[in-house]
Amino acid sequence: MGSLTGGDPSLLRKINSAVVLRALREAEPSCSLTDLARVTGLSRPTVEGVLEGLGEAGLVAETGAAGERRPGRPARRFRFRAEAGRLLGVEVGPRRVAAVLGDLSGRRLGTVAHDVDTAAPAAERLAKLDAVVAELLEGNAVDAGTLRAVGVGSPGIVAADGTVRLCTALPGWTGLPLGARLRESFGCPVLVENDANAAVLAERWVGAAVGADDVVMVLAGLSPGAGSLIGGRLHRGHGGAAGEIGALHLLGRQARPERLLSTSDEPLVPLDEQAVARVFAAARAGDRRAGDAVARFVERLVHDVAALVLALDPELVVIGGWAAGLDGVVEPVRRELARYCLRTPRVVASALGGAAVATGALRLALDRVEAELFAVPGRDLSAP
Amino acid sequence: MGSLTGGDPSLLRKINSAVVLRALREAEPSCSLTDLARVTGLSRPTVEGVLEGLGEAGLVAETGAAGERRPGRPARRFRFRAEAGRLLGVEVGPRRVAAVLGDLSGRRLGTVAHDVDTAAPAAERLAKLDAVVAELLEGNAVDAGTLRAVGVGSPGIVAADGTVRLCTALPGWTGLPLGARLRESFGCPVLVENDANAAVLAERWVGAAVGADDVVMVLAGLSPGAGSLIGGRLHRGHGGAAGEIGALHLLGRQARPERLLSTSDEPLVPLDEQAVARVFAAARAGDRRAGDAVARFVERLVHDVAALVLALDPELVVIGGWAAGLDGVVEPVRRELARYCLRTPRVVASALGGAAVATGALRLALDRVEAELFAVPGRDLSAP
Repeated sequence: MGSLTGGDPSLLRKINSAVVLRALREAEPSCSLTDLARVTGLSRPTVEGVLEGLGEAGLVAETGAAGERRPGRPARRFRFRAEAGRLLGVEVGPRRVAAVLGDLSGRRLGTVAHDVDTAAPAAERLAKLDAVVAELLEGNAVDAGTLRAVGVGSPGIVAADGTVRLCTALPGWTGLPLGARLRESFGCPVLVENDANAAVLAERWVGAAVGADDVVMVLAGLSPGAGSLIGGRLHRGHGGAAGEIGALHLLGRQARPERLLSTSDEPLVPLDEQAVARVFAAARAGDRRAGDAVARFVERLVHDVAALVLALDPELVVIGGWAAGLDGVVEPVRRELARYCLRTPRVVASALGGAAVATGALRLALDRVEAELFAVPGRDLSAP
Repeated sequence: MGSLTGGDPSLLRKINSAVVLRALREAEPSCSLTDLARVTGLSRPTVEGVLEGLGEAGLVAETGAAGERRPGRPARRFRFRAEAGRLLGVEVGPRRVAAVLGDLSGRRLGTVAHDVDTAAPAAERLAKLDAVVAELLEGNAVDAGTLRAVGVGSPGIVAADGTVRLCTALPGWTGLPLGARLRESFGCPVLVENDANAAVLAERWVGAAVGADDVVMVLAGLSPGAGSLIGGRLHRGHGGAAGEIGALHLLGRQARPERLLSTSDEPLVPLDEQAVARVFAAARAGDRRAGDAVARFVERLVHDVAALVLALDPELVVIGGWAAGLDGVVEPVRRELARYCLRTPRVVASALGGAAVATGALRLALDRVEAELFAVPGRDLSAP
């Protein structure tokens, strides 16, 4: 049994550096040297030494002693340079490729989205991704070399290294080494995650699930998927396939959404947000076939959500995907769940809507950078 | 930053005691003083002091120096007294109350089970529980005062204090302060758990799920339920209702099992193991209506299992309850899951069958005792 650092001075420096940097970020916009020493419990000379190193690394800047008029020498003030690096959150979906730019504090600085054909082959979708990112970086005058981490949300089962194990929604996506491909082009860490998993992280970060630890988010779309948080952490499942609920409908002998939402004898193609919104509007206006279509759609959604809720018992269900923007979806889901579940969770619509997946991908990139900059290296306690 | 014990001598004694006791139990049947010192890394006098305290507490006994013939003084040998206390695992089900007796090493020493009417009121079921336990203790010449912990598995949603929040399967069970009631009668810690949760713990301990960390166990019975392990730990859900899948059938607009398994126009009542086994046997013999009934039953089971698998993505599914004893259930579930799931888990029948719930309850009692006797009190590492 010994001290936490085992007397290793470089480890001690790393700990002190992380502690000071975290204190600075929490004290945004800036913090005095005196306060830093007080908050961190470190001596003033130690803090000064740490700040010097962080300044050389470009992560900290000294600011003017704004607003302080006291006798004696002016208080030195410092701030975390969130602009020292950039982060990207990218969504690669069946119909759309989008990217959001962030700084090292997770502030969102801009976004770009382009449509893509659902039938587009993988090369075309990847080229679209490159184009979206190039436009976003150029529009914000950001050098690609300043990217510290990139998060990506995409449908399907994704391996830890970012390889797409299985994806039925995007042509040519199964087997794609997406992580490796993007690490090469970005030259920084790239985290690839299932789209619904990214979306639930986003809702918990800045959306409808802030403060909730046990959350199920359903992305209702062409091929529905779900992302779950258990105890505040993503539940990916043993093989990364948790929440891949597309097959539930086969079990219920129900048709694909193009048929469910059709108001004629033909499937509703293309099935996009506008088309679905028109069906919902027609139902509200009293159209009988549209009303039936909406009822079928809601019944199916209830079935999906109920299966997840009965299996997982979350505190909160977030309805996302294009269903989130539709009036009259959340209330029936809420009502039906109360009938079927022994313990009924709260049900809310996504607060982020179409931005959820890219925002969650940005959160993944931010997590990566935070682990790098702010984490205090711990040591396992072992028995004596 | 300081040493792990913060210089507290009583904490240090407790740690040393737990470490020695754990080493002794792992070295069953006995261990020499020399080996104990070597394995624990403690000095010989420290080990001797600890053993003296454990001997006074009745947890350790000195054994003869069996089989060792070396010159000089004989090696002192010690053993963990697993007989120093007794544990109970109890199942309170719709049709049956059962109890299994164990020692402090988890060895099962005996079991007693009595039938009970599904319509029996709570008082009658509790009296049956008392009778089963009395018979078990008497038959094994065990004084009730030696019970160190009691585990109980029962259907429904159970609060952490052992109060049944909601139970549709047992009359009068909802709201019952089962834990408090049994703590009073047993005078020792009582852990109450959902029956399917207890069953999955048992299968992982000594059954079909040994070595698996991500497991879903389905108890197919009157009212189906599921217990899940995620990363080796029970997933109870936000309100303890995870796996309460009884309502899935309502969603699928399917009938109760009495109708599903009926080979006539009347429901199959009573629906017990014998009745169901007869239907399965008739199906195997070529009876058309029995064949249809089995097909309906399997379809329903597949639907339950698929919902859980799609939500959770386990590595292993264990089919338990009375379905486990039936030929021809596991194979169709396996085949159908492979059709519906992006990543198909292994599917096996329960190895413990009807003993799973009581065995899991015993495991809960053992966990409690192990936490008390063998746990090394840890301290959180906090930032400097």
